[in-house]
Amino acid sequence: MPKKVDHDERRRELVQASWDVLCVDGLEGVSLRRVAQAANCTTGRIAHYFKGRDELLIASLRMAHTQAGARMRVIAESETDPLKRLRAILLESLPLDARRLKEWQVWLSFWAVSIGHKDLSAENQLRYQEWRAALADALRPIVSGKQVSVLADRLVTLIDGLGVGVTLSPTKEARQRAQNEIDIFLKSLN
Amino acid sequence: MPKKVDHDERRRELVQASWDVLCVDGLEGVSLRRVAQAANCTTGRIAHYFKGRDELLIASLRMAHTQAGARMRVIAESETDPLKRLRAILLESLPLDARRLKEWQVWLSFWAVSIGHKDLSAENQLRYQEWRAALADALRPIVSGKQVSVLADRLVTLIDGLGVGVTLSPTKEARQRAQNEIDIFLKSLN
Repeated sequence: MPKKVDHDERRRELVQASWDVLCVDGLEGVSLRRVAQAANCTTGRIAHYFKGRDELLIASLRMAHTQAGARMRVIAESETDPLKRLRAILLESLPLDARRLKEWQVWLSFWAVSIGHKDLSAENQLRYQEWRAALADALRPIVSGKQVSVLADRLVTLIDGLGVGVTLSPTKEARQRAQNEIDIFLKSLN
Repeated sequence: MPKKVDHDERRRELVQASWDVLCVDGLEGVSLRRVAQAANCTTGRIAHYFKGRDELLIASLRMAHTQAGARMRVIAESETDPLKRLRAILLESLPLDARRLKEWQVWLSFWAVSIGHKDLSAENQLRYQEWRAALADALRPIVSGKQVSVLADRLVTLIDGLGVGVTLSPTKEARQRAQNEIDIFLKSLN
């Protein structure tokens, strides 16, 4: 009797394998062959779940984004003070440890390939909308309604700028400076 | 009698051809074969001037950086008021027209491949050092000596954040917001 296959679980395994390859080899290294190796299956099985490399990539990036979002919600919910909560979310979004540095390296790769690529670009826009909305939610208890939108945009810019800087030059000084800039920003809200 | 070959000129042509390919096809599209096509020569001739794809890529990015730097110097020198000069440099550094958008798309690609790649990463660090030094020079007549370094770092972060935002979503609103943010920053210097 054939084993009952959990298709959702199988799909998740492939997405995870693709993410693992991404983190080790970078975006250029992701091929169906390489992901099949990592998932210990055939490329034929991948084709059963995903139309091709791009669909698999989008699924992995969506998974990573969802996981980062979940981490952020846990952090946000453990903080009742609005300013401390915003600070925790901002720090969690920066590449301040090895795991998040890896994530940022993947985002940077993703930015590069999303240029001139409609599906990936749309996925990226979606990710930004969600991120901006999360920042607006965190800002709302702290600043006046009119300021929320301007400051959410400003924070997206600040985190992108700091994140790029630390990712391209991940030194202790760069990480410290990024944290300082967050605190300077938060102080300006008072 | 064989034509006298101007090797520097020949080299420059190949670098320019490589940059042209970069701008049209993106970094993944740059191969020696493709550059040879664009330069109307053989891959053998490219091999005569460059050890390989990476060396050619570095030369193209260096050329683009040098050209952007030269544009900025022209702008800087045409402005005698220090604050207006800084503003002109900052606006010139952003992807506010088609040519600079193309350059930013290439920088983003370059960031992605420079991760985990020693030579490209070193080239990138060098580019940042030069850019930071240019900003510090422009800040020096405006702010106190102690502030120059902090503000130069902050401007690098601001421009990276704004540049990424506009490059990934090159809308009129994004360009307008980027210009506003520059003016808000400059106002904070007073």
